[in-house]
Amino acid sequence: MSFIEECKQAVLQDWQKILNHPFLMELARGVLSREKFEYYLSQDDYYLQDLLSTLGILVAKAQGRVKDFAIHLLYETLQGEVAMHEAIKREKGMEFFSKGEVATIYGDFLLRTAYEGDVLDILVVLCPCFLSYKEIGERLFPQAGKDIPSTYRFWLESYAGEAYQRITNELLTHVGEEAKDIPERQRKELTGLFRRATWLEYRFWEESYTFRLE
Amino acid sequence: MSFIEECKQAVLQDWQKILNHPFLMELARGVLSREKFEYYLSQDDYYLQDLLSTLGILVAKAQGRVKDFAIHLLYETLQGEVAMHEAIKREKGMEFFSKGEVATIYGDFLLRTAYEGDVLDILVVLCPCFLSYKEIGERLFPQAGKDIPSTYRFWLESYAGEAYQRITNELLTHVGEEAKDIPERQRKELTGLFRRATWLEYRFWEESYTFRLE
Amino acid sequence: MSFIEECKQAVLQDWQKILNHPFLMELARGVLSREKFEYYLSQDDYYLQDLLSTLGILVAKAQGRVKDFAIHLLYETLQGEVAMHEAIKREKGMEFFSKGEVATIYGDFLLRTAYEGDVLDILVVLCPCFLSYKEIGERLFPQAGKDIPSTYRFWLESYAGEAYQRITNELLTHVGEEAKDIPERQRKELTGLFRRATWLEYRFWEESYTFRLE
Amino acid sequence: MSFIEECKQAVLQDWQKILNHPFLMELARGVLSREKFEYYLSQDDYYLQDLLSTLGILVAKAQGRVKDFAIHLLYETLQGEVAMHEAIKREKGMEFFSKGEVATIYGDFLLRTAYEGDVLDILVVLCPCFLSYKEIGERLFPQAGKDIPSTYRFWLESYAGEAYQRITNELLTHVGEEAKDIPERQRKELTGLFRRATWLEYRFWEESYTFRLE
Repeated sequence: MSFIEECKQAVLQDWQKILNHPFLMELARGVLSREKFEYYLSQDDYYLQDLLSTLGILVAKAQGRVKDFAIHLLYETLQGEVAMHEAIKREKGMEFFSKGEVATIYGDFLLRTAYEGDVLDILVVLCPCFLSYKEIGERLFPQAGKDIPSTYRFWLESYAGEAYQRITNELLTHVGEEAKDIPERQRKELTGLFRRATWLEYRFWEESYTFRLE
Repeated sequence: MSFIEECKQAVLQDWQKILNHPFLMELARGVLSREKFEYYLSQDDYYLQDLLSTLGILVAKAQGRVKDFAIHLLYETLQGEVAMHEAIKREKGMEFFSKGEVATIYGDFLLRTAYEGDVLDILVVLCPCFLSYKEIGERLFPQAGKDIPSTYRFWLESYAGEAYQRITNELLTHVGEEAKDIPERQRKELTGLFRRATWLEYRFWEESYTFRLE
Repeated sequence: MSFIEECKQAVLQDWQKILNHPFLMELARGVLSREKFEYYLSQDDYYLQDLLSTLGILVAKAQGRVKDFAIHLLYETLQGEVAMHEAIKREKGMEFFSKGEVATIYGDFLLRTAYEGDVLDILVVLCPCFLSYKEIGERLFPQAGKDIPSTYRFWLESYAGEAYQRITNELLTHVGEEAKDIPERQRKELTGLFRRATWLEYRFWEESYTFRLE
Repeated sequence: MSFIEECKQAVLQDWQKILNHPFLMELARGVLSREKFEYYLSQDDYYLQDLLSTLGILVAKAQGRVKDFAIHLLYETLQGEVAMHEAIKREKGMEFFSKGEVATIYGDFLLRTAYEGDVLDILVVLCPCFLSYKEIGERLFPQAGKDIPSTYRFWLESYAGEAYQRITNELLTHVGEEAKDIPERQRKELTGLFRRATWLEYRFWEESYTFRLE
């Protein structure tokens, strides 16, 4: 079992709460309220800016093949998710929301880890996001009806797409290589980072799902 | 006169010593010793790794359009210069040299500035490299004979190419926008960073030109 | 009105919720549950380690008189609050608690700000902690009965003491000097940092007060 | 043999060139030109500011006993060396010199290492400075004549003093503990950092000794 697979097993309950979250279930069935989706997308905009910053630090700290990978991941995130958000906002318009609690604490956690940690810390802290979105795309896009709102289809499709699946697999491969032969104490610390990021992923969906315009 | 133009005027003597450096004159005429070129290229490999790290920090610190630009600059540096170096080494083979004095102090200077400074500091400290290489490509590629070693032509061509010219112009545009309305004290500090980086560019050529295999 | 006074006015409601928090009211009357106090103190241990780290970055980024001040603040925090915690734990023993949610997000916020921000950002983000504890010491120590538990008296006394009052006043003086003549946009950003830190101070007390051993 | 003793053996030639440098020989005999001493002291002012910054980052990155030690080292450097410099300048006046080449590249090297490296990297990179000054104080102060200029005596005395010797020994103890059981590859990298810092110590003396007012 790969190190990330072990991490996932250690947080399995939270992981399943993400994959089965009503936000995602309703989105795939096309019945999610537009308001909740817009709130989510705006929060994910803030998250993506902090993710780009985190990847910048990863580029700075990594060497060799991981450095090149980090540059590709950065570029594909800009060309992929960030561009997908822009396309949705351009087409449909979207309300402005300020940065919410979960995006704030998740971003602070990523950036603190990036500045204080080493390459493997940064790679691991990014895994819950990439890996859960990959699984969301894989599972939910095939189930999604043809007649759900086009924005929801487009969103699901981009995580089910070949580019996203490939870059996530590369991330997992690099983690696997870097985590080989690490001592038990480091293993535990890294599992703690994975657990925290998974918990914040869960809270991200939860905050968006329970959002209500005042 | 743009801010970077002012900076250039302030260091004009060193700037001209770069543009007219015998290393470059001999390269354009095709008579530069292969040994010196290989030493230069190996040192520039070290420099490029530190440049990628510096750009990573720029991505992390920048926001909005400068952040997007920094990601593109990072990606194009990997796809452009780094790939060009790999192509030369693959084709011709190359001796291994350890990191020399100038690449060491230049890299340390870039990374310290990146971690301590703000976005404009980082943009300015990168200008002497990009701008002098752009001018080298512009001036020397058209003069270069068709019969000079293909590696030297290929090298010159890549800095004369449209992609390098465009990305450098974008860098200058961003500096111009960020440097608008800055107070005099900051202007002086930034000019100091530009001066130091220009001096290190000069020393880079000088070290490579005076290199001798033992 | 000083800049920090303006910040305080902008968050006055939260400020008063801190100063009048039942945790503090009960502590000053000597009726706070020992369990809640121990939980608070353990969380403040985690906070203090992150505070020391934040002050370390401040030392690194500051120059001149602010750099010297940051070194003194760091040293006095170690000799003051950290030593006070050690004394309490040595004398009374204390249960072990892991890092709670509020200490985690507050620490992440401080460290992210420290690495990304400039000297004034770091100074401002520290103010809600130092200033509210100074006010707590000033107001509550004189009211505290002689017969409240000695640990609670000792704790209150250390924030009412001359050393803590002086160092906090010096902090405010430095913020005042650095914040003179800053543009409106920066003023707003700094007020945002002050607001966030004040909110986290409030939640710190709230989390400790609502803590229950399972 | 301790790890740092091994490092010292690896750079023994440079180490002896420091301990026997004419700058120090002439200083101990009282015949060093005042001009060279003033240039040295001004450069060491710049170095000390960068040293304080480096120690700040060490505080931020370290945990437990090393964090406490780093705070003490920072404080004692301010109260010791920095205050000693201030005393000399107050008493004797001193010319202003701008930051020279060696102080610049040494400072950049320290700060880059501090931001990029881990706790042990930072501890090791500081050793050549502390350890060589400790040895300078130990050896040369007892030899120094009573009639040499009082400034030179005062300077030597401060490195021969109990406080400096103790703090340096503590630094070496911490390095010894942190370096226990590190893999060979890390050992080599750390030796490289030690070597570079030793070389810069040597060049520091050399630059000051060859300094001439224009």
